[in-house]
Amino acid sequence: MHVVRIAVAGASGYAGGELLRLLLVHPDVEIGALTAGGSAGTPLAQHQPHLLPLADRILSDTNAETLAGHDVVFLALPHGKSAELAAELGPDTVVIDCGADHRLTDADAWTRWYGGEYAGSWPYGLPELPGARDALRGTKRVAVPGCYPTAISLALFPALAAGLAEPDVVITAVTGTSGAGKSLKPHLLGAEVMGSLSAYGVGGVHRHTPEIAQNLSVAAGTPVTVSFTPVLAPLPRGILASCSAPLIGDGAAARETYAKAYADEPFVHLLPEGVWPTTAATLGSNTVHLQVTVDPDARRLIAVAAIDNLTKGTAGGAVQCMNLALGLPETVGLPFTGVAP
Amino acid sequence: MHVVRIAVAGASGYAGGELLRLLLVHPDVEIGALTAGGSAGTPLAQHQPHLLPLADRILSDTNAETLAGHDVVFLALPHGKSAELAAELGPDTVVIDCGADHRLTDADAWTRWYGGEYAGSWPYGLPELPGARDALRGTKRVAVPGCYPTAISLALFPALAAGLAEPDVVITAVTGTSGAGKSLKPHLLGAEVMGSLSAYGVGGVHRHTPEIAQNLSVAAGTPVTVSFTPVLAPLPRGILASCSAPLIGDGAAARETYAKAYADEPFVHLLPEGVWPTTAATLGSNTVHLQVTVDPDARRLIAVAAIDNLTKGTAGGAVQCMNLALGLPETVGLPFTGVAP
Amino acid sequence: MHVVRIAVAGASGYAGGELLRLLLVHPDVEIGALTAGGSAGTPLAQHQPHLLPLADRILSDTNAETLAGHDVVFLALPHGKSAELAAELGPDTVVIDCGADHRLTDADAWTRWYGGEYAGSWPYGLPELPGARDALRGTKRVAVPGCYPTAISLALFPALAAGLAEPDVVITAVTGTSGAGKSLKPHLLGAEVMGSLSAYGVGGVHRHTPEIAQNLSVAAGTPVTVSFTPVLAPLPRGILASCSAPLIGDGAAARETYAKAYADEPFVHLLPEGVWPTTAATLGSNTVHLQVTVDPDARRLIAVAAIDNLTKGTAGGAVQCMNLALGLPETVGLPFTGVAP
Amino acid sequence: MHVVRIAVAGASGYAGGELLRLLLVHPDVEIGALTAGGSAGTPLAQHQPHLLPLADRILSDTNAETLAGHDVVFLALPHGKSAELAAELGPDTVVIDCGADHRLTDADAWTRWYGGEYAGSWPYGLPELPGARDALRGTKRVAVPGCYPTAISLALFPALAAGLAEPDVVITAVTGTSGAGKSLKPHLLGAEVMGSLSAYGVGGVHRHTPEIAQNLSVAAGTPVTVSFTPVLAPLPRGILASCSAPLIGDGAAARETYAKAYADEPFVHLLPEGVWPTTAATLGSNTVHLQVTVDPDARRLIAVAAIDNLTKGTAGGAVQCMNLALGLPETVGLPFTGVAP
Repeated sequence: MHVVRIAVAGASGYAGGELLRLLLVHPDVEIGALTAGGSAGTPLAQHQPHLLPLADRILSDTNAETLAGHDVVFLALPHGKSAELAAELGPDTVVIDCGADHRLTDADAWTRWYGGEYAGSWPYGLPELPGARDALRGTKRVAVPGCYPTAISLALFPALAAGLAEPDVVITAVTGTSGAGKSLKPHLLGAEVMGSLSAYGVGGVHRHTPEIAQNLSVAAGTPVTVSFTPVLAPLPRGILASCSAPLIGDGAAARETYAKAYADEPFVHLLPEGVWPTTAATLGSNTVHLQVTVDPDARRLIAVAAIDNLTKGTAGGAVQCMNLALGLPETVGLPFTGVAP
Repeated sequence: MHVVRIAVAGASGYAGGELLRLLLVHPDVEIGALTAGGSAGTPLAQHQPHLLPLADRILSDTNAETLAGHDVVFLALPHGKSAELAAELGPDTVVIDCGADHRLTDADAWTRWYGGEYAGSWPYGLPELPGARDALRGTKRVAVPGCYPTAISLALFPALAAGLAEPDVVITAVTGTSGAGKSLKPHLLGAEVMGSLSAYGVGGVHRHTPEIAQNLSVAAGTPVTVSFTPVLAPLPRGILASCSAPLIGDGAAARETYAKAYADEPFVHLLPEGVWPTTAATLGSNTVHLQVTVDPDARRLIAVAAIDNLTKGTAGGAVQCMNLALGLPETVGLPFTGVAP
Repeated sequence: MHVVRIAVAGASGYAGGELLRLLLVHPDVEIGALTAGGSAGTPLAQHQPHLLPLADRILSDTNAETLAGHDVVFLALPHGKSAELAAELGPDTVVIDCGADHRLTDADAWTRWYGGEYAGSWPYGLPELPGARDALRGTKRVAVPGCYPTAISLALFPALAAGLAEPDVVITAVTGTSGAGKSLKPHLLGAEVMGSLSAYGVGGVHRHTPEIAQNLSVAAGTPVTVSFTPVLAPLPRGILASCSAPLIGDGAAARETYAKAYADEPFVHLLPEGVWPTTAATLGSNTVHLQVTVDPDARRLIAVAAIDNLTKGTAGGAVQCMNLALGLPETVGLPFTGVAP
Repeated sequence: MHVVRIAVAGASGYAGGELLRLLLVHPDVEIGALTAGGSAGTPLAQHQPHLLPLADRILSDTNAETLAGHDVVFLALPHGKSAELAAELGPDTVVIDCGADHRLTDADAWTRWYGGEYAGSWPYGLPELPGARDALRGTKRVAVPGCYPTAISLALFPALAAGLAEPDVVITAVTGTSGAGKSLKPHLLGAEVMGSLSAYGVGGVHRHTPEIAQNLSVAAGTPVTVSFTPVLAPLPRGILASCSAPLIGDGAAARETYAKAYADEPFVHLLPEGVWPTTAATLGSNTVHLQVTVDPDARRLIAVAAIDNLTKGTAGGAVQCMNLALGLPETVGLPFTGVAP
């Protein structure tokens, strides 16, 4: 295969930085334009001091011109900024949107949760969901999932698809602070987050809720009700999603169902019985660590998934989709091991 | 009132240290014997370097003799170690057990969850629960609640007592690592916990589950089903409990119900609408920060509580009960403000 | 004594919050006006959710009018903002400046390090320095030291005053991130500081350098050369100062010298031989934990001090000075125990 | 080149885990025996859950038999355990000792600092030191440096070699807690280290002191006096070394000297002027981020280096040496980018 020339729009942010960290060691990729908004004109090292091999690269302005002439363009932009720009990129360019603009298939849901004009949906970049991989092979457009929906959908879909649990799920997911991006908000200051746990977006108001419902409803073949509470914890990276739903039957088939669902998935790892996931084991890797059990007293099926929100939850998932879109081996260039301790 | 002479059994551990931190500034208390197991004979400073005024105190051996002659004896011992010792302390001594030995009212539940001989139950040390305060006034025996049950019971009982939610609750509670005590286990090492989130005791196997069910069932007047998932997060102290249950009706009365339930409670603070609790705001204080809302799509009532697991969750709650047992003002010597940031 | 009515200018920041945490439990104090800049008009709870008893207080605008009519005014303002405002406060008001405006006694040093007009110096609020306490008794003006100078001056002055070490000191001090205040800067974001250590202000360019030199030179009776490197570490509070200087003689008298220097100091605690300070033991307390030793191979005296930068390093020191200024017992209202673990 | 078959002794510890993380993606390596002490017989996943591809490997007992038949044997054992074992491994096997047994060239120094029998010294595994690389090419034995000596030697040797600074250095180095290994000691518990900074091994008693002195003395061509204070900080990985020495001359040549010293070094990165290192930028990478400056007032040269103690500080350095020993390209299989934020 010829070398794939890629561009990253939003290279100064956390998602952009993680894309570059992965793409730097991807054997088939050459890194082209790196663009930014207010930081255009500054060297990448100022924003991403960990990316030594690109330290001296100067950020261009994010626009269709600077992004032209690449085989693949990754958009790591604030929600609502991708659609217009993507429309200006040629139909032969593979455009991989790490934002939310093209994730929802329901126009009304889009309007309700994001406002603004609905831009339509693109193939959804979670290859492990039933049917998703086929839609991603050879595609020119990918909507990368949100980090929470990645962890939660993979934790719950096998149970719902197999009819092991009611379509009425309750989720509390704990996350590191990089999920909020490099935003200068007081509650994201180090002194505020270290030593503290806080809930936010409680009561079904987090924008990832409809995306979770969409994924799980497809899997269940029926509308799934989603109660989702996100919690901010003092670590830079990682999501631990604690998910449950009322049992149908006794749940005896739970483990086997999950083992079968993920038997051939290279990045999803069902842990040995009795072992529960830790986010540290996934740090910087594209893996999902997963466990499932049944609480016979509460009559609920419980699944817990751990991911790195920036890797499998964003940039790693995006590169996995790029591989599929380009017909490369799906796992190429992606780490299977976390950085621990 | 004359000076109250107190002793702490288990003074080298986290609960013991927190008891002493609070009792050192309690105006009516004089600190007597400090005892330990393997650390007997060593100075307290070696275990609690933050407790300067007691730095040179030598730890005695934990036994009925060293604990005799005090008005109040706090037992901060591993589960299962309190009952026998308490039986040797005189009936006129106020004995406050921070362990689990006397928390459960059901002998079968005790046997199932803890094994060993059931020691009977004592007045339950969560004064904010309906009826609990009266049982604590003048008592000679107090069973201090577990840290999780403290946060969770206060988050949920008003809704269940008022019939706003079904008796079928789902809880994910995130905790700092001091909750596990000063145990030398690999998964509690700093290098393991920093930068990681992990679930444990999933599927209804955590020993706090029956205690939560007991409290909530009394409040609801009917057996309550409890699904409880604890999560370990990288901070020393703090519990954030994310709790929910299916709505009965539309939940319009939720906020008013909680406001009324806690109107006269000095330590429980219902936050302004739209503000969610952070554990940092409760650090080192005896307060509970609480919020409640309704998710109309998921048709669930959701309540989130934050406490310091060592203060309100253990030692602060214990001192609050001591005040009640001795007929002192309930809040004396207890901090209302957290140490933040 | 009548109740002391106090005001805090800058009540929305970290120093202001810590002042209020301490003053809320000070037995002789009534809390009056709380003022802010851009946050004027908002309730304190929005900025200091841990200060429950003041949750509903509305912040006034910071100006001489709102601050008038108090016995004591604390200024917790950005550097350079105190001098003008202080000049408008009556000469009978005790004004305690937590900023840098009145710390340096040398006008040229002021101009070099801070620029702008020199406002003169006030009695220096570190009572443990030789001579300082007398100047603070009954004063109407106090310049509260910087957090680094507090830790470092106390770590080194006994050795310099006793001629045990050359007046040529090398210091690396590690700090939590609250020392930088509630500034919205990218490098202070939680995701940036957690899991990272970074040096800053290296090479003698940190503004606390001349203040350290001033204190140590007075103690030594000769100009002291100061090499100071601050390091930012992932914790909210705490300074650990590692300080050394070339030995004069064999240093055999070091421990005795320090023990004597601090024998009567209520807040400075020389640890037992071989025990080294931890900042956690000082969290939220007004104490200094200190150790000194001699390295015979390197021929240096080494002293290490731990403080809480917001308590003894700022607000606690300020309250200690208020006590002296008002003729109250010096330690009243100030915590001797840290919040640990 | 044929595939290199490697074994790791001590695969359950932190150094062993990091070796495996790196070797798993090394293109020329096949992972053979993994051995342990007390953990022999258990699967690797129990100790290193982040190393998915090796999850099911069962740990063998650490002895010469299980380690036989490999091209390269890495010893990641407690100090004092390597020498005897290494003597039993064939002379054709490349033995890379991550412990201290063969680091010191001076037998008396060995006896003073480590006690026990001196095992002799091996080629020192810090290729960036003058002369070191040549000794490593084709060698069958490598003594991997300590993590502190790696950071500190690289921070200071160019200045000493060039005669820019006196041979009398003062170092305070801050470290994450993985440097202490997976030891079950109370002060390493998460609840103790989070939120705390602590000094240890102060006064020249840390065992890395003679190794630092050895390296710097060779570079300076004269004995170098070393004052070394290590500080423990709340992060899993990372060392930030703050190093200084009295200036000779005006230090004008400092930057140029460092730039020249490291111009051809692939892993050592002198940051742009005015930019100071952060450990996060090196997390999981084999890089050293470095800055040097001059303090004209204090007349000292100051250099600060950041590394990941487990990567460049241990396992990455070890793999770099393996590459040299085997005649492979020095950088193959080693990461140049950190995992940040």
